[in-house]
Amino acid sequence: MDKNKVVSQLSLKYLFNPCTQMSEHKFLELLPIKSAKGVYLYDFNDKAYIDCISSWWVNIFGHQNEYIGKKLKEQIDCLEHIILAGFTHKPIVDLSKRLCEINNNNFQKCFFADNGSSAVEIALKMSFHKNFLQGKKKELFLSLSNSYHGETIAALSISDVGIYKNTYKDLLIKNIFTPVPSFNDSDFSSYLKALEDILKKYADKISAFIIEPLIQCAGNMNMYKVEYLNKAVRMAKEYDVDIIFDEIAVGFARTSTMFAYMQSDIVPDFLCLSKAISGGYLPLSVVMLKDCVYDEFYGDYKRSFLHSHSYTGNALACACANAVLDIFENEDVINVNKIKSAYIFKRWQEFLNYKEVKNLRHCGMVFAFDVDCNINNFTSLIKQKALEKGLLLRPLAKTIYFMPPYIINNDEIDYVINNLHLILKEIL
Amino acid sequence: MDKNKVVSQLSLKYLFNPCTQMSEHKFLELLPIKSAKGVYLYDFNDKAYIDCISSWWVNIFGHQNEYIGKKLKEQIDCLEHIILAGFTHKPIVDLSKRLCEINNNNFQKCFFADNGSSAVEIALKMSFHKNFLQGKKKELFLSLSNSYHGETIAALSISDVGIYKNTYKDLLIKNIFTPVPSFNDSDFSSYLKALEDILKKYADKISAFIIEPLIQCAGNMNMYKVEYLNKAVRMAKEYDVDIIFDEIAVGFARTSTMFAYMQSDIVPDFLCLSKAISGGYLPLSVVMLKDCVYDEFYGDYKRSFLHSHSYTGNALACACANAVLDIFENEDVINVNKIKSAYIFKRWQEFLNYKEVKNLRHCGMVFAFDVDCNINNFTSLIKQKALEKGLLLRPLAKTIYFMPPYIINNDEIDYVINNLHLILKEIL
Repeated sequence: MDKNKVVSQLSLKYLFNPCTQMSEHKFLELLPIKSAKGVYLYDFNDKAYIDCISSWWVNIFGHQNEYIGKKLKEQIDCLEHIILAGFTHKPIVDLSKRLCEINNNNFQKCFFADNGSSAVEIALKMSFHKNFLQGKKKELFLSLSNSYHGETIAALSISDVGIYKNTYKDLLIKNIFTPVPSFNDSDFSSYLKALEDILKKYADKISAFIIEPLIQCAGNMNMYKVEYLNKAVRMAKEYDVDIIFDEIAVGFARTSTMFAYMQSDIVPDFLCLSKAISGGYLPLSVVMLKDCVYDEFYGDYKRSFLHSHSYTGNALACACANAVLDIFENEDVINVNKIKSAYIFKRWQEFLNYKEVKNLRHCGMVFAFDVDCNINNFTSLIKQKALEKGLLLRPLAKTIYFMPPYIINNDEIDYVINNLHLILKEIL
Repeated sequence: MDKNKVVSQLSLKYLFNPCTQMSEHKFLELLPIKSAKGVYLYDFNDKAYIDCISSWWVNIFGHQNEYIGKKLKEQIDCLEHIILAGFTHKPIVDLSKRLCEINNNNFQKCFFADNGSSAVEIALKMSFHKNFLQGKKKELFLSLSNSYHGETIAALSISDVGIYKNTYKDLLIKNIFTPVPSFNDSDFSSYLKALEDILKKYADKISAFIIEPLIQCAGNMNMYKVEYLNKAVRMAKEYDVDIIFDEIAVGFARTSTMFAYMQSDIVPDFLCLSKAISGGYLPLSVVMLKDCVYDEFYGDYKRSFLHSHSYTGNALACACANAVLDIFENEDVINVNKIKSAYIFKRWQEFLNYKEVKNLRHCGMVFAFDVDCNINNFTSLIKQKALEKGLLLRPLAKTIYFMPPYIINNDEIDYVINNLHLILKEIL
């Protein structure tokens, strides 16, 4: 039997994959990956695929990265994990300090968790709890339409993703959505008016406004302009609403600056990070906050913020994150990315030649366009055709995007673009 | 300056520790751990501490375990991580198959996540969603008084832990508690009557009854008898309520059987596992379910269970989990534990000689007693005294417990017991 089939059939027997309608795999191959190196994934027949989506936006410095692997192995031979209540360790102390420093000390404390959803839940709880301690009862949250913040119930509640949440409506916490501008919008008056109407009516009940700055990644890569961000956040701050930036997908230089908020003229109260933080190696997330918030929880036991997860601050994950920061320090990643981003975008614009391609856009190392077509099973079809051509692509509805590891080189970029041309020519 | 202080002061400057009132560290040392091996943790002054709580109940085969470390390094040199939607890999396929097999195929599918809270949220969502697909609108959950299931909002909602959740009451989802028997109860009629009253009134609205079988660990190590579990679960099943067992803390032989439910005569609909699953190395959790549940989500896109986390099914964490299962296969862990458990309990009973010691109890490799005293800051005092004597102890309120890595030997056990005697003599 085909070597891939042996593994994939066993997988289908025992594994329920995330974010997947499993019946899709009656038609679309569930591809088993044997190993990976750089931008390449290898299946059990030794066929190579370029990871065009950084394995769900986590892998920035390539698979089997030698430096990260080396630092991780060193940590294995020292301390793999220790409870973080009452105890601490050097990898997490170094990481916390460095995260504050690369944020220009805009934040002074780090609170860790294991995944993005948990980080979002922590930020929501912290904002609510801080307000509660200040005598303010604010049980509402505000978020942008088309937003995505995770899958645990509270994170899902503040996300605007119909199919992911409609079923659970009787379980969700209270949230208000304000309309987000899209890529083409440059007049934000109606959006700001909508926001102001909400704030006028509900601000005294809203703990926090949570925002994915610059790009709503899961929201079909909606890239909106920083002017809206600046104005919306300043307005919310005037109404005494906390600001949470969810940079889980865009943090660590994806949008061209180390963090997306650095392109704005504001600093949020809370910053949620995950995904690329460990270079795509291990689950790790963090909420960064300011000392003025931390101080609210400091005092007698009744003021405690008692959130925890067993593996909070796992030393192995921290070692990977420190290695990632080493790479940022030792290599001129952000400037090299600028050259790479310009090269990719030059070629990406070739897709404007297809009449079905709309809203072609990019921001830093994220490239996208929408396909205006009536093809059934568009996403499955693209995924399948991409695999045939040695690409891992995963369109979001009718949006095709390219979000590669930063280490991709020009030859690999050309391979992706050339083959995406072939795919579009076949299906359009 | 003292080497520990250098690290701990930097830690206090940048890190907000989980489950901690940070002001406690004005008096109690925040101890930095440099390395760990076996049951021993070493601080920056090279002082050793026995990890009496398996680093929050995660570490079962010791720190820097050579076998787990070796298997983890092999995985680093092959595949560290790949998106699990549309893709799969051998470590997770092997792990899923093995988890089903060591559960005697009572469950046929595995759905992965990164921490216990997320696993609980997945189980709640899955039960609710499955019922929804079957045309049943059941927006309530049922759990035991004194229960603990995690910190994300939905997991917290079904937990009965005042100080952790009271603040957030306006954010919580709807839950009903039924009283749990305590260690000393052997007549369960009033408990079962209370449960029946709830079921009679609300069963058509209750999706699932979630239970920590045999021991409510965070609930001050409340060990209740299996007879209650059997009767309560059978009753709930008669009322068409799903059963979720949260074995995050007790799974993987902590209670003497591989999973706690194996001491009962029932099999739950969902089994949540985490903590010891990776041997205390990496964040990983799983919800095990049956094909009849999986099949409900199989079909057109509208039936999809679309939960995901970026690092779901991380290959490195799966490699650790497979190594843990290897150790269970290759060494007679459960039977060796029985001998060790008997030895510990023989010595543990020496604490009955203190008049303040009440409810001395054990279950498998968990040993506990309550201290009836009026000492202020009892838990901080025990923690501090324990550190002085080279022990990591972390009482739950007035409950002292011992939950060591399984690899602890008799000399180390004696050291713990002898020093706990000294501590009690000093403070009582």
